[in-house]
Amino acid sequence: MRIAVLGVGLIGGSVGLAARQRLGAEVAGFDPDRELLERAAQLEAIDEPAGNAAEAVVGAEVVFCAAPVTALPGVAAEALAAAGEDCAITDVGSVKRDVIAALGSESRFIGGHPLAGAETSGVENARADLFEGARWYLTPTERTGGMLYDRVQRAISEMGARPQAIEAETHDRLMAAVSHLPHVLANILVTQAATALSEEAEHLPEVGPSFRDATRVAGANPAIWGDIFAGNRQAVATEIDAVVAKLSEAADLLRSGDRDAVRAWHEQAAKRRRELIETEIAGGPLHELRVLVPNRPGIVAELALELGRGGVNIEDMALYPAPDMTSGAISLYIAGDEQAERAEKLVRLLGHDVSRAE
Amino acid sequence: MRIAVLGVGLIGGSVGLAARQRLGAEVAGFDPDRELLERAAQLEAIDEPAGNAAEAVVGAEVVFCAAPVTALPGVAAEALAAAGEDCAITDVGSVKRDVIAALGSESRFIGGHPLAGAETSGVENARADLFEGARWYLTPTERTGGMLYDRVQRAISEMGARPQAIEAETHDRLMAAVSHLPHVLANILVTQAATALSEEAEHLPEVGPSFRDATRVAGANPAIWGDIFAGNRQAVATEIDAVVAKLSEAADLLRSGDRDAVRAWHEQAAKRRRELIETEIAGGPLHELRVLVPNRPGIVAELALELGRGGVNIEDMALYPAPDMTSGAISLYIAGDEQAERAEKLVRLLGHDVSRAE
Repeated sequence: MRIAVLGVGLIGGSVGLAARQRLGAEVAGFDPDRELLERAAQLEAIDEPAGNAAEAVVGAEVVFCAAPVTALPGVAAEALAAAGEDCAITDVGSVKRDVIAALGSESRFIGGHPLAGAETSGVENARADLFEGARWYLTPTERTGGMLYDRVQRAISEMGARPQAIEAETHDRLMAAVSHLPHVLANILVTQAATALSEEAEHLPEVGPSFRDATRVAGANPAIWGDIFAGNRQAVATEIDAVVAKLSEAADLLRSGDRDAVRAWHEQAAKRRRELIETEIAGGPLHELRVLVPNRPGIVAELALELGRGGVNIEDMALYPAPDMTSGAISLYIAGDEQAERAEKLVRLLGHDVSRAE
Repeated sequence: MRIAVLGVGLIGGSVGLAARQRLGAEVAGFDPDRELLERAAQLEAIDEPAGNAAEAVVGAEVVFCAAPVTALPGVAAEALAAAGEDCAITDVGSVKRDVIAALGSESRFIGGHPLAGAETSGVENARADLFEGARWYLTPTERTGGMLYDRVQRAISEMGARPQAIEAETHDRLMAAVSHLPHVLANILVTQAATALSEEAEHLPEVGPSFRDATRVAGANPAIWGDIFAGNRQAVATEIDAVVAKLSEAADLLRSGDRDAVRAWHEQAAKRRRELIETEIAGGPLHELRVLVPNRPGIVAELALELGRGGVNIEDMALYPAPDMTSGAISLYIAGDEQAERAEKLVRLLGHDVSRAE
């Protein structure tokens, strides 16, 4: 099998590695950044660096376009022009609307988006197993060739991903709701706190763990997120409109002074979050263990090591230091009833107070 | 010195323990929950359980009212009626407006709010060092007696806290911005994602780490947060109004398609968050180290243990598992240039890829 990769950063490089190692494919690569292209070849993410995109796609059965979101329609169009009639062209952009608007009528083009790699970037971090277990959305249209779709789906399955077909518009809406919107709100929260700060400059508020958690992604990776916000602007703006409506309702609810209704609203949120998070974790319902600990170097190690020895994996973790950093609480998120119970026992044997957060 | 504590949960119990152990005070306590009161006495958080609030405050020099926010004005009024002329009455409520509106003209009442204990609850978790290093806001008014204010301030300083005077209204606004608002937005985000979900039921979106971080406090402790939202409803609603305005601007900005402006807006948020977080961490500027790791039991331990051995403390941590949980990234937040550099070296020696997130 012959594969072409246009754009050899983290995702393109990982596609190359996975295709070579898992599909036994021969991989041609191109990137306008010659240095990056050489590096990808050195790392054996591609077999051969090509002189241009057209050269790379010659004879390819699948072309992966892995350029930045804004460049994708252009890169994919170039691939379509140069590739043969029996070649499937797909992309890996995190927003699908523009590229489908431009190329959705092409039977050989299939939009795609692997949910992987967001935690890092650069071909140096490319890995053959980057897509192992990852959802990989594909956005076929009524014009998409069935054989070509099947070929792309099989290729990404063999790379370890879990393909799922979805309409481009639905994809963008879901991403807006669960990924892009949290980034917008984090930015707004930070701005809002900074405003409160500047108006009361003599009182620097001390921000707590809830603020830190809620704003962790504020301003993350401006190059990538600038493009994502721009590329998915319609869907994100629509989500923002919906949030504005919900916030106005919340403000009204608060102003009404209806304590029971406020509490019911709040309880509903806890229930919904649990449902959402649980759909994602494979190992059973997610439990949160709250552990009270001295906040000294090594304490996280002690806990994690003990759980590790006991075969318990920690899905997620949050630290809540006391203001002086001498003590605090650690939330450990453990999947599965049995694992959570075991974790609770192990932590207690270490002499820490532990409770289940409901 | 004689102290009275009205309400002996986590905060009241910790005040009792700290007053007994650090101030050498004799502590009388009362709680309408008789069982809780007995438990506090068993745990030696109080010297003597009183039959009612009036009995508890007899002869006290400082009375700490540690009832739920909504009960505070009533409890404090009861204490004022029963206490002597030379007794200072203070409270620990996280919202100050209502109690100051009711009692701000009393020279013996001084509103208070320690930023501690949010991570847990219950007298079982009470600790003499709960307030060590914690900011403890006091909200004196022009009517407040100077000697009494001084006495309260000295008492909480000796308990380890860092007192700071602030106007009640300013306090409530700051809390609304940096603490209450993140909780509201977390609730809204969850609701919004659930809406997207229910409309596209066949496509359960997989929520990523940004969603998990942003919504971690959604629906937390309904009993407490219902009261806080109700008690600080004016300030929180005002913050929500401001957020609505900022969100509408953000939606306009996105719809305009002005890529550079979007990027500048996003970059600004990153800068502001760093400034806010840094005001809180004592050990110097905060660095984020991104470490790529296999996501197996024990890996967090290995890292944290190594840093602990090297004398590096981890201020905050975030896990970004890959979808199949076999690998991922860990962000370690380290305060201070020198510590961060040391941490980076140690992690590299363990054989992991590590980079500074900017």
